[in-house]
Amino acid sequence: MTFRLKADYATVVKLSGSWMPNPYGDTIDMTRGENNVWSVKIALPSPEIYTYNFVVDGVAVNDPQNVLVQRDGTRYLPMLLVPGERTENYGEAVSRHGTVSHPWYDSKILGMSRRLTVYTPYGYEASPKKKYPVLYLLHGAGGDEEAWISMGRTAQILDNLIEKGLAEPMIVVMPNGNPGQAAARTLNIPEKQMNWRAPENQNAYVRSLCEEIVPFIEKNFRAIAKPEARAIAGLSMGGGHTITASILYPQLFDYICPLSAAGSATPEQIAALKKAGVKLYFLACGDTDFLFEGSQALDKTLTEQGLDHIFFVSDGGHVWSNWRLYLNTFAQKLFK
Amino acid sequence: MTFRLKADYATVVKLSGSWMPNPYGDTIDMTRGENNVWSVKIALPSPEIYTYNFVVDGVAVNDPQNVLVQRDGTRYLPMLLVPGERTENYGEAVSRHGTVSHPWYDSKILGMSRRLTVYTPYGYEASPKKKYPVLYLLHGAGGDEEAWISMGRTAQILDNLIEKGLAEPMIVVMPNGNPGQAAARTLNIPEKQMNWRAPENQNAYVRSLCEEIVPFIEKNFRAIAKPEARAIAGLSMGGGHTITASILYPQLFDYICPLSAAGSATPEQIAALKKAGVKLYFLACGDTDFLFEGSQALDKTLTEQGLDHIFFVSDGGHVWSNWRLYLNTFAQKLFK
Repeated sequence: MTFRLKADYATVVKLSGSWMPNPYGDTIDMTRGENNVWSVKIALPSPEIYTYNFVVDGVAVNDPQNVLVQRDGTRYLPMLLVPGERTENYGEAVSRHGTVSHPWYDSKILGMSRRLTVYTPYGYEASPKKKYPVLYLLHGAGGDEEAWISMGRTAQILDNLIEKGLAEPMIVVMPNGNPGQAAARTLNIPEKQMNWRAPENQNAYVRSLCEEIVPFIEKNFRAIAKPEARAIAGLSMGGGHTITASILYPQLFDYICPLSAAGSATPEQIAALKKAGVKLYFLACGDTDFLFEGSQALDKTLTEQGLDHIFFVSDGGHVWSNWRLYLNTFAQKLFK
Repeated sequence: MTFRLKADYATVVKLSGSWMPNPYGDTIDMTRGENNVWSVKIALPSPEIYTYNFVVDGVAVNDPQNVLVQRDGTRYLPMLLVPGERTENYGEAVSRHGTVSHPWYDSKILGMSRRLTVYTPYGYEASPKKKYPVLYLLHGAGGDEEAWISMGRTAQILDNLIEKGLAEPMIVVMPNGNPGQAAARTLNIPEKQMNWRAPENQNAYVRSLCEEIVPFIEKNFRAIAKPEARAIAGLSMGGGHTITASILYPQLFDYICPLSAAGSATPEQIAALKKAGVKLYFLACGDTDFLFEGSQALDKTLTEQGLDHIFFVSDGGHVWSNWRLYLNTFAQKLFK
């Protein structure tokens, strides 16, 4: 495929892409052509969602021709979806789409009103008596309540899995895991927060999740309010939140999925969790992830304590291509 | 205020901003400083929401330090809110926030599943028996179902007006007015559309709005299904849709607000509308808008036919600063 950018007065134009061996450093030179349109042709990378940008005289530039943009933290990046088996659930479902909504909940623990992202499956509005299980899906450091919807393609993955009959219809709740932030991309939020940096408040967000968000969802959405209808999953920092929530509230979630997790658990904590009962413990990590050793250690503890679990090891590192793969995989195992 | 951009190898760096006399051509030169950080200091423009970008060796570059980005059609632009009386309702409300959701409706008329943006006011979830009036709010050419939420600040304006007791709690429905588009920023939507370009289908979208979207909303949301609880407003092309809907379905909406409208009505059509009954006809346009003469003509027809109305004339042209002002103004007059 060919990338093009019109740049009349540029001296050097390059292409940077997340498919390159070093996504944070590699670039390919582009060539000036007619009418100062710079271009470069590349071999189509393997099926996946990638991001890319141009570099014009040393400055990152987005593609004015591409309306598909993903936000990763503070960076807006043009997106490229290469079709194939790996990505077949990442585009829009054929005809059945769930609803993405952005309600706010009042957090007494964190001292502010905060925004959530909630996915309700196709048919939710039309079936006013039906109740659904809920997956709580947590982002990593640098992310927020829009990360799983944007980079993670959660709505598309769930729409496709449910449409194909591969996953149970479920509600997915994506909170904001930064205790000092009310919501992504907002102006003039009041600053009357608790001191969440104090050591005694280190689990304030996990407490708000389990004691405020779960009840808010079960009051305001048609959620089945039982452990066997609650799943928790999270990536990186959110994997740590997942492990912490499972330890502090062992009765709350029957499905626990730490992904590329920044977190650990002691043998005693896993023993207590086993006693509380777990229907699925799905641990996932890439084999070149800088957190892989931690996942291996947790796998070992789970094995030693006899807690039946899946250790899903993929290629690659601490990247969204893995987190989309993990969601697409474990979502098929929930609530069954 | 000072704008800054690090650009190590650039030759010329400029600033472009929507507050400049000619927003599409004017730029200000920036100066290279220490560590190749280019900067320029400007006098703070008058209170309003602006967009801006850098121009590096002739190429538009966004501000990597600004996470507040608005999308206008295919362009993503960093946003600048200058505080003041004019903008006091454009930032987040103090504590009461409505919910923005993105449900899909099935359009038999347009032959596809299509996405809407829906705002429900604070308290909607907590008051499961309360019903609300509905404003249908339509975008212009080049826009889509995200335009009013992004550029228009609809959620913030309604949150603030309702929190201050200046507007009735209401649902706001923002459809996608492009009959060939299922939704903004989506991949691989099926292409089994009707031929909406055919002359006999010229009002297909307005028909879908009145015959499909209104019933969808009144079935799936707690909406008051009466003309006195329905308002329609739209800007530019959406102002034309507003006028067309009021003519084709004179019984449907009691509140009609064409904004900088691309559309017209005959004396006979206005006479029929008057007969059907209208509680508010709010016509708005900027005095330098290229469509101002059309609004003056419509004002004249409304006066001649004795249809009581407001002709709200603002400074300026065909721009979002005016459409935010109009929404902030007419929303206070609805359903009272």
